[in-house]
Amino acid sequence: MNGPNPLRVRLVEIGFAALVEVVGEVDMASAPALEAVLAQATSSGADHVVVDLRHTTYMDSSGLNALLTAALAHRDLGSLSAPTPHRRCSACSRSPAPRTSWAEPATAARTRRRQGRQPAMTDLAAKATKLLDLHHAGTTLVLPTVWDAWSARAVVDAGFPALTIGSHPLADSRGQQDNEGMTLDDALDGIRRITGAVDVPVSADVESGYDTPPAELVERVLDAGAVGINVEDTVHSQDRLRSPDEHADYIGGLRAAADAQGVDLVINARTDVFLKPEGTFADPVAEAVSRLLLCEAAGARCAYPPKAPDADAVRTLLAELAGPLNVIAHPVDGSAAGSLADLQQLGVHRISFGPLLQMALVDPLQALVAPWAEPA
Amino acid sequence: MNGPNPLRVRLVEIGFAALVEVVGEVDMASAPALEAVLAQATSSGADHVVVDLRHTTYMDSSGLNALLTAALAHRDLGSLSAPTPHRRCSACSRSPAPRTSWAEPATAARTRRRQGRQPAMTDLAAKATKLLDLHHAGTTLVLPTVWDAWSARAVVDAGFPALTIGSHPLADSRGQQDNEGMTLDDALDGIRRITGAVDVPVSADVESGYDTPPAELVERVLDAGAVGINVEDTVHSQDRLRSPDEHADYIGGLRAAADAQGVDLVINARTDVFLKPEGTFADPVAEAVSRLLLCEAAGARCAYPPKAPDADAVRTLLAELAGPLNVIAHPVDGSAAGSLADLQQLGVHRISFGPLLQMALVDPLQALVAPWAEPA
Repeated sequence: MNGPNPLRVRLVEIGFAALVEVVGEVDMASAPALEAVLAQATSSGADHVVVDLRHTTYMDSSGLNALLTAALAHRDLGSLSAPTPHRRCSACSRSPAPRTSWAEPATAARTRRRQGRQPAMTDLAAKATKLLDLHHAGTTLVLPTVWDAWSARAVVDAGFPALTIGSHPLADSRGQQDNEGMTLDDALDGIRRITGAVDVPVSADVESGYDTPPAELVERVLDAGAVGINVEDTVHSQDRLRSPDEHADYIGGLRAAADAQGVDLVINARTDVFLKPEGTFADPVAEAVSRLLLCEAAGARCAYPPKAPDADAVRTLLAELAGPLNVIAHPVDGSAAGSLADLQQLGVHRISFGPLLQMALVDPLQALVAPWAEPA
Repeated sequence: MNGPNPLRVRLVEIGFAALVEVVGEVDMASAPALEAVLAQATSSGADHVVVDLRHTTYMDSSGLNALLTAALAHRDLGSLSAPTPHRRCSACSRSPAPRTSWAEPATAARTRRRQGRQPAMTDLAAKATKLLDLHHAGTTLVLPTVWDAWSARAVVDAGFPALTIGSHPLADSRGQQDNEGMTLDDALDGIRRITGAVDVPVSADVESGYDTPPAELVERVLDAGAVGINVEDTVHSQDRLRSPDEHADYIGGLRAAADAQGVDLVINARTDVFLKPEGTFADPVAEAVSRLLLCEAAGARCAYPPKAPDADAVRTLLAELAGPLNVIAHPVDGSAAGSLADLQQLGVHRISFGPLLQMALVDPLQALVAPWAEPA
């Protein structure tokens, strides 16, 4: 069926629940519902069918498999594609991200045409998908954490395929304070300077979102050129930790907003459970797992529990979570769960440095100037 | 004479020509004129007499000595002070900067009171004087060149008493281009972030002044917290080198504006003679000397000819110029005129790093991330 209006299905993500959009919007949460919608779309000759997971309800793995089977059953429909794993991701139960050749959500395309920003958004969509793919390449992805255009260029020149920006080192470079000492405007100014200086995908740290509604935050982050975001559950402006549901809801809002823009924004859901004083949680590992599972279900693409205390905790997190795990490391000292080799062995998907790369660079900087400090 | 309105004279700078302000303004260019004004001020019981060199005309060294003698002759008048050298400056024919306990120009004090910024301006005046003094301490002053709040803090923590900001590394950190790729607003934003992060005097690079009138430039630079400025004669926006007189006139305008604010702004006059293609000048050293002499006469506090080719050139510049000389160095490789020890031996007053410190830090940064670039 290679007519002028081929039916194409885009599975934006493989997860626990799905929303299918055919011209308007159709809610569904099961494989039979997907099957029915696809059949309806086929018979109606719809231009695009977008299968866009919004994680509004839960579905067990057999339901997930049925969803996949239903989608795959429609591969014979024109240019329909499905997320056939193109590389094995050894440490992750998820399939790789969909190919960028898949169709985009019709609403996102309309939005873009309205805004006259098609080239930039196409570039962002490709970069976001590239960043997501790097999490599922079957190796441990290291995303050095930079703070300005100079450090970003130096790291890209060293061969890294993507970068992270940390709010802490960014604030230190800008002469501001972390923990919401910056406004969203401040953070975006710093982010934009970095994304404008390098051509690789960049993930930015937006703390807990600076009290910004999800759609606005996503729009502004994309406008600043970032294709991934760290979102934490500590709201420093209110000196509190979000409840698990509240944090997942916010993540879900960001997911929906990003999908509406047609960009696979790599949301790295962060929980600060391990940063709280001992005794705050009876079982911090279990608390982190349950919070991050909710975030995954809400559309996070990676889970980030800074300062997971040891290799056992990382092992449990990897076993319990469905998607990629981000571990923080010091470029010289490694992580609490071990060295780079140890983290690779454990199957950790992603490593970033938080403020530790910038901190580690103070010694070499001071070593360069020290001989000039005390003229003989 | 310790009455309620003691007569105090402040010699802002020892140079080639002078303007004396007593209530209103009195132009003068000779020692007898100063003597007359001081006598008049004494008899009228004036609150303040400001001796404020504007370098509107030239005066030979005997004239300068006569000026000094005239000022010193009034030391018995209440709290009158004069610039008795407090430390010997081995490589400079100038006396140290006046003490901060001297009175400030009345107009500057009025300006400050109007603006309600007295504490900040007092702080700036003290910092400017401190920075100027460091040029006349009889040792070689090293002012590492930084680019953001993080690098500034690291250098201050390493023990340096003052800093420079380079437009090149600043632009690189901000993801912009040097050579007027930044606007004055951009540069000032970067400068302000650094001056706000450290408590030491900071000198900023403002290229050729971004086509900004002197009074406005000085006001905005001070508002951004800098107490010294590099001003070069290359106008990148117009792809040309200023004529010697034009550059000196601009320096003179900056001097007058700073003095009107009551701040001993340390103007580091830069000429790019040595950056021009070979053959541009028949005798580049002579050209640099004549340009920088004009700048000194116009009120520069330091002279900066980047890339003076060798020790002989530096020796000539030191011999011909009256005031401090700034040499650029690489933190590892030293300068074209030799190592730090060599520059000390020559009697160089000031060393900065231009973009070379930031460039030298790329290797250590890449060395920190390199082990993480290619997971096994």
